[in-house]
Amino acid sequence: MSLIIVGTMAFDALETPFAKIDRVVGGSATYAAYSASYSYAPIKQISIVGGDFPQEEMEELAGRGVTCEGVEIVKDGKSFFWSGKYHMDMNTRDSLVTDLNVLEQFNPVIPDSYQGAEFLLLGNVMPSLQKQVISQLKKRPRLIVMDTMNFWMDIAMDDLKEVLTMVDALVINDSEARQLSGEYSLVKAAKVIRAMGPRYLVIKKGEHGALLFYEDKVFSAPALPLEEVFDPTGAGDSFVGGFIGHLAKSGDLSFENMKTAVIVGSAMASFCVEKFGPIRLKEISREDVNSRIARFTDLSKFQASVL
Amino acid sequence: MSLIIVGTMAFDALETPFAKIDRVVGGSATYAAYSASYSYAPIKQISIVGGDFPQEEMEELAGRGVTCEGVEIVKDGKSFFWSGKYHMDMNTRDSLVTDLNVLEQFNPVIPDSYQGAEFLLLGNVMPSLQKQVISQLKKRPRLIVMDTMNFWMDIAMDDLKEVLTMVDALVINDSEARQLSGEYSLVKAAKVIRAMGPRYLVIKKGEHGALLFYEDKVFSAPALPLEEVFDPTGAGDSFVGGFIGHLAKSGDLSFENMKTAVIVGSAMASFCVEKFGPIRLKEISREDVNSRIARFTDLSKFQASVL
Repeated sequence: MSLIIVGTMAFDALETPFAKIDRVVGGSATYAAYSASYSYAPIKQISIVGGDFPQEEMEELAGRGVTCEGVEIVKDGKSFFWSGKYHMDMNTRDSLVTDLNVLEQFNPVIPDSYQGAEFLLLGNVMPSLQKQVISQLKKRPRLIVMDTMNFWMDIAMDDLKEVLTMVDALVINDSEARQLSGEYSLVKAAKVIRAMGPRYLVIKKGEHGALLFYEDKVFSAPALPLEEVFDPTGAGDSFVGGFIGHLAKSGDLSFENMKTAVIVGSAMASFCVEKFGPIRLKEISREDVNSRIARFTDLSKFQASVL
Repeated sequence: MSLIIVGTMAFDALETPFAKIDRVVGGSATYAAYSASYSYAPIKQISIVGGDFPQEEMEELAGRGVTCEGVEIVKDGKSFFWSGKYHMDMNTRDSLVTDLNVLEQFNPVIPDSYQGAEFLLLGNVMPSLQKQVISQLKKRPRLIVMDTMNFWMDIAMDDLKEVLTMVDALVINDSEARQLSGEYSLVKAAKVIRAMGPRYLVIKKGEHGALLFYEDKVFSAPALPLEEVFDPTGAGDSFVGGFIGHLAKSGDLSFENMKTAVIVGSAMASFCVEKFGPIRLKEISREDVNSRIARFTDLSKFQASVL
């Protein structure tokens, strides 16, 4: 078994109302790989970077079981760069700079050694690239999980809808679910979106937790009540990385286990926001992850059987 | 044992984007009493109405164990009237008409037969009236639960803060918690508010559920994902009625049982919003309530012990 993760590997400059960092490693596939690596290896990464991407970061990833054979290195190119500034509520942000750089020539090619993977995470990249990855796989993975964002709904909705017909699970946030479905009620939105293709739908609601929809069932996962969010960047990628990492580890695609995967994803996202970029994700131990998962259990369990 | 409920009994005119009703019974104590009556009797009501308040409503309440000896009837007066119009999101609304009528002369007097009550719900009325009720009780109840709203924070904050020092539990929504504490983070807000008096704090988050804070513990209760909310009026009063009704029934003030009470309150609120005013609250059976509570359990339970 193995898990392929597709997405960006990049540099970010981040500013929140409380702090600022000029350069930190980022990218959807970077966050997702660090997050998934706490549950599962090997992870087979598909991305593109410039000659400026740190060799130490590649080695750090390799040390966690992340193979970068599928990461194209454009020696004389520069890595994707994004700069953003968060508002006081930490939920909204302005993009200040988006330099695609090598991402403009991203043409994902699946190495032979990646063939046969049972799990595929299509991280947040252009939908046509997500489709291109699926079409190169000789054997369809057991589970394809897709992430995306409102930006692609604005400029590439047709491609996005085509990819939706090819995946098992979609993971998006509440405003994206509303935009994709045209429905305000998340229950109605979930019906519309699941009719577009994915059997499983996860709607993330930030500080309000997440909802998992499957058939006529719903699971409501809590979010950890936090005193403060230091930097929300990468929380969504960490969520989906933790989600698919747990599924790859367990090999169990039942609704019950999908619920657990949502909790693992929530726990990984809750670590991610504690420091800039993926810094916190690299510091923690598997014991830290288990303790945090136990906090989610404490947070939401109740007895209501004898009333 | 008995439970005293203080609050308004009124008429409302309601308009949502989907429907409209010109006159329906309302008021914080009306909703709370109907809701609590599914768990507990006797309930001893404290309120004031005009000669226009329907005798059948009083009889309906009496049939559910709600004593109205403490409800002053001003024969030649008119009951409190409120008219509101909800926006598309059903979370925000405009007050169109607020006719205080007999509420202007509300001077709650506790009948002797109400003395010795172990549970007291201070429903949403002017804080000075809430204080007046507490001061008339010869024996302090085991549990005093307080509801309030942003309006009183705007015009009667000093009184409100004084009542806070006299109660065990406060039940408010997220925007009220932010206003009362001056903190955006609900975790920080909870610390500030609990330092003002109440040991227990419930923060309701509408479609995102509720948080219960006690000592260093937090409980996150889910909300039932609904396709649509028909009329949100009275949901908060139904919540707090269900909450204290369960506590009065069980007599158990442990944190574990407070969690269950939050779920019962959430279940009652989820019924309330299905029809105009308290109509749905009067139709359901205790079996309906139990089934709904079971849905909350299904919605939020997960297995994460073996990872």
